[in-house]
Amino acid sequence: MIETPYLLFLGDAPDMLAAKVAIGIRDWRPANALGQIRLPGCGADLGLADMTLAEAQAAGAKTLVIGVANRGGVISPAWKKVLIEALEMGYDLASGLHNLLRDEGDIVAAAQTHGGTLHDVRVPTVGYPIATGVRRTGKRCLAVGTDCSVGKMYTAMAMEAEMHARGMKATFRATGQTGILITGHGVPLDAVIADFMAGSVEYLTPPNDPDHWDMIEGQGSLFHVSYSGVTMALIHGGQPDALILCHEPTRSHMRGLPGYVLPSLETLRDTALPLARVSNPDCVVAGVAVNTQHMDEAAARAYLEKAEAAMGLPATDPYRFGPGALVDALAAI
Amino acid sequence: MIETPYLLFLGDAPDMLAAKVAIGIRDWRPANALGQIRLPGCGADLGLADMTLAEAQAAGAKTLVIGVANRGGVISPAWKKVLIEALEMGYDLASGLHNLLRDEGDIVAAAQTHGGTLHDVRVPTVGYPIATGVRRTGKRCLAVGTDCSVGKMYTAMAMEAEMHARGMKATFRATGQTGILITGHGVPLDAVIADFMAGSVEYLTPPNDPDHWDMIEGQGSLFHVSYSGVTMALIHGGQPDALILCHEPTRSHMRGLPGYVLPSLETLRDTALPLARVSNPDCVVAGVAVNTQHMDEAAARAYLEKAEAAMGLPATDPYRFGPGALVDALAAI
Repeated sequence: MIETPYLLFLGDAPDMLAAKVAIGIRDWRPANALGQIRLPGCGADLGLADMTLAEAQAAGAKTLVIGVANRGGVISPAWKKVLIEALEMGYDLASGLHNLLRDEGDIVAAAQTHGGTLHDVRVPTVGYPIATGVRRTGKRCLAVGTDCSVGKMYTAMAMEAEMHARGMKATFRATGQTGILITGHGVPLDAVIADFMAGSVEYLTPPNDPDHWDMIEGQGSLFHVSYSGVTMALIHGGQPDALILCHEPTRSHMRGLPGYVLPSLETLRDTALPLARVSNPDCVVAGVAVNTQHMDEAAARAYLEKAEAAMGLPATDPYRFGPGALVDALAAI
Repeated sequence: MIETPYLLFLGDAPDMLAAKVAIGIRDWRPANALGQIRLPGCGADLGLADMTLAEAQAAGAKTLVIGVANRGGVISPAWKKVLIEALEMGYDLASGLHNLLRDEGDIVAAAQTHGGTLHDVRVPTVGYPIATGVRRTGKRCLAVGTDCSVGKMYTAMAMEAEMHARGMKATFRATGQTGILITGHGVPLDAVIADFMAGSVEYLTPPNDPDHWDMIEGQGSLFHVSYSGVTMALIHGGQPDALILCHEPTRSHMRGLPGYVLPSLETLRDTALPLARVSNPDCVVAGVAVNTQHMDEAAARAYLEKAEAAMGLPATDPYRFGPGALVDALAAI
């Protein structure tokens, strides 16, 4: 559990793309994002107040979050001065970088001296159990994709926000670094040891109120040969009552796998649903979420209409056109 | 790579069941099994020569292998005297226990003093890559099961032995502790970090001669919710040209999962084959291996006949009736 609210460290991020984590926090947990702190030459701007460490602390900030990813995931010397100063002032630090905070001697020393906590969210901190497969109370929704990075996290986040707006009980359950930093907790599933993957998902989505929805962040794809095992563990550990099919129609091949074509939405449905029914016989496919960012509005709307007709399911781009139709479908389950 | 031949340490194993690892080595790599060493009260006997450490060393033994699993996987104090004496004499040690050799201070000290190597085969020693999905030369066969522990390892081992007898090129590729101890190398797949599972299988089964078969040891089951992610990674990382379907017909529920019934062979085929074709479009289901140990011979033969007719595939119990029909099927690919 990472203490909130945050001050978002953008460092010397060359552009907005490098500030993806900070953008996610601002968009999905604005109450956690008190302000931003930038180094000279920073090309990213979240539109939040620029604050010094002292100003943010006076406003209540508890944790300085590294909201930027640089080449190689390294903690640069230019950043260290700010990070160590923050620890000296009593901040905790949180990072999703490959280069762990705990591997930097001067950062560790400052944390120990001043009692700060270092959150390296890439590293599991829990000894997860082996999955038991025992059915749990409460409802769960999992986004599964035709490929990696097709919008599974944004779909779950957008649906959670809409469900809260409607007064429904829902909790986004983070399974990746960005999601964990946004919400302050979760399971870094890609770093969990193979035997405990499904168990870590069970741990993440415990029994709950019958009308409560866990909105589980998807990972990978059953059709992405590098990461399909992670997706499989999510499906069986998550025991989803509802699947949302996620797709990006303009991609010519699977991400990072030239020569591998994306499956159709029909193939994704026919593959994922029987597997999901192994752990939850009541599972249904509830809707389709399409990432239309590379299509103009007319093409996007035409694609969604066609998908809706072909699949017999509500289809939307939850980021562009809102997740209402998908939430309607969950509400009917 | 564990140095061979071995002296097999049976310790105070109460019965043969506890000596599973040692039995596997004796059965599948008899040339590696110089002899056995037992403590007072040992209830297991492999039928090998009982040797002292000195006798086995004189006969060429390089590694003392802990061929016994006790309750909780612990290295008992009673064992330590022998293990440390072996290190003092220049042996290496190999173990698949949960309790790691490297976590025992006195064993580590003896290894360091005398230059011995400690092989904890539960722990990966390689930084595996992310899977690339690039097609590799050579052929690969993977056993997939309706459940865990239905005979996938024995099927691959028996087929490898038969292929060698016929002069075919084949290599058993171990993915579990027992298989690694038997052959001296492999990937402890259940201990690999999620993101690298499929990559570790690619690493294990590199490009090879066009007429060479990797006989990949299967793990888990696509239908076992605790471990299905591991199976999925094996299917996509292994790029199998041939699948062997493995089944144990008398089981009332999935191993360790009361309430979960086993799928039919047809369901296993229809689930595994399309997933395998994602990474290898040429993959076929080559045959059926049935573990008939809990059936009398007439029932076993009747079951195999029925399975053969229903599936249109050769079906055998490779341990009881030999793997010939399965090897015939591979030879025809």
